[in-house]
Amino acid sequence: MVQAHTVKSFDEDLRQLRSIIGQMGGIAEAQIVSAIDALQRRDADMAIRIVQADKALDALEADAEKLAIAIIARRAPLADDLREIISGLKISALLERIGDYAKNIAKRTTVLAATTPVQPQIIIPEMGKIVARMVKDVLDAYAGRDVEKALAVWQRDKDVDDFYNSLFRSLLTYMFENPQQITPSTHVLFIAKNIERIGDHATNIAEIVHYNATGSAIDTDRPKGDVTAYVSNPADDSED
Amino acid sequence: MVQAHTVKSFDEDLRQLRSIIGQMGGIAEAQIVSAIDALQRRDADMAIRIVQADKALDALEADAEKLAIAIIARRAPLADDLREIISGLKISALLERIGDYAKNIAKRTTVLAATTPVQPQIIIPEMGKIVARMVKDVLDAYAGRDVEKALAVWQRDKDVDDFYNSLFRSLLTYMFENPQQITPSTHVLFIAKNIERIGDHATNIAEIVHYNATGSAIDTDRPKGDVTAYVSNPADDSED
Repeated sequence: MVQAHTVKSFDEDLRQLRSIIGQMGGIAEAQIVSAIDALQRRDADMAIRIVQADKALDALEADAEKLAIAIIARRAPLADDLREIISGLKISALLERIGDYAKNIAKRTTVLAATTPVQPQIIIPEMGKIVARMVKDVLDAYAGRDVEKALAVWQRDKDVDDFYNSLFRSLLTYMFENPQQITPSTHVLFIAKNIERIGDHATNIAEIVHYNATGSAIDTDRPKGDVTAYVSNPADDSED
Repeated sequence: MVQAHTVKSFDEDLRQLRSIIGQMGGIAEAQIVSAIDALQRRDADMAIRIVQADKALDALEADAEKLAIAIIARRAPLADDLREIISGLKISALLERIGDYAKNIAKRTTVLAATTPVQPQIIIPEMGKIVARMVKDVLDAYAGRDVEKALAVWQRDKDVDDFYNSLFRSLLTYMFENPQQITPSTHVLFIAKNIERIGDHATNIAEIVHYNATGSAIDTDRPKGDVTAYVSNPADDSED
């Protein structure tokens, strides 16, 4: 047993951890794409399958944690390697949360599928496409230790926030003009917020990839686009 | 240098990590209480100070991570001790996010302070009190490795969810009847959601404390109270 462990190299251990994270990234991206697809098709059955599929991400996150602890206990890695493992754990936690947001979109889709469509949600598929791509690209950046690619993802978050701010405003106006549509509109509002949060999390992953590769934080102020928390007239808010 | 490190015991290292987490818990709890207070007083200046004070939590989380990596590199702890350190990191990340939710409440308060009060927000201070208490109690449970106390926190999350569901429904009705109040009501809705998420995160910490002390997950199905994602008639949603 111990023999087998020591024969396997630390690099191989790390590769295994990275492979779990790569798998999680693939599932998270697919869950976002499917959730937006189910919303557009108004397909409640598909949405229910998406809710169920989220369990895979929870299980993989637990696997990543177990593996990370096993690697550290077995190898007693030094600071740089340790930091890489801890980063892996943080990324897997972020991917698990991205999955939660996709799941929440699917839950709300089961309701929206049965109601009159809310008009301003046309912008949602576009936002969904951007964040799914951000998740894909940031995982590629992680796999290839590609700082430029990570930076590009980080910068794209501004677009997501702009879309969100604009949608927030349209939705509030729409609700004002169509009070009978307030309940479905609220779901669309929370869906938009979920997508905006996915963008934030992809951005967080980009920051980790950048830090791992360069040893320093991204040197620009983070593009702060979600300003809806401060909107007194339709729409503005960021959590970070 | 190395001498000083080796003289200091592993227990002392751990105590230091736990002390940072205790500090974070104290700040997170105070931020929640202050955010609700500022909301009730409609005090925008106080809200702005709360937004600024969040930086302390971000800095402490970074400290916790640095310390954890230093302890692991220095001590090469075995699996059980490692798990304890990793748990500490997870708890500090959850506390940092709890701080983000309190900050977001404060941001929205700067807007709400200047608008006509939204009527159904009377339930918010009650929810705020419960989650601030949950954060305090779960940190006490962590400090004392107190499984019973952690379980009690875990069970209280149901009340928060019940409050949230009820508020969600009241708010949608209120918005329908007072369309000119849709914008502030939306902020109250997101504030309620933030509080509900704080409850979820306190519950996550309770699960970690339980797992650390017993080696097993909490043996009941998690009380799932936020059902608003599924509400077609005013109000229903959980992310996890």
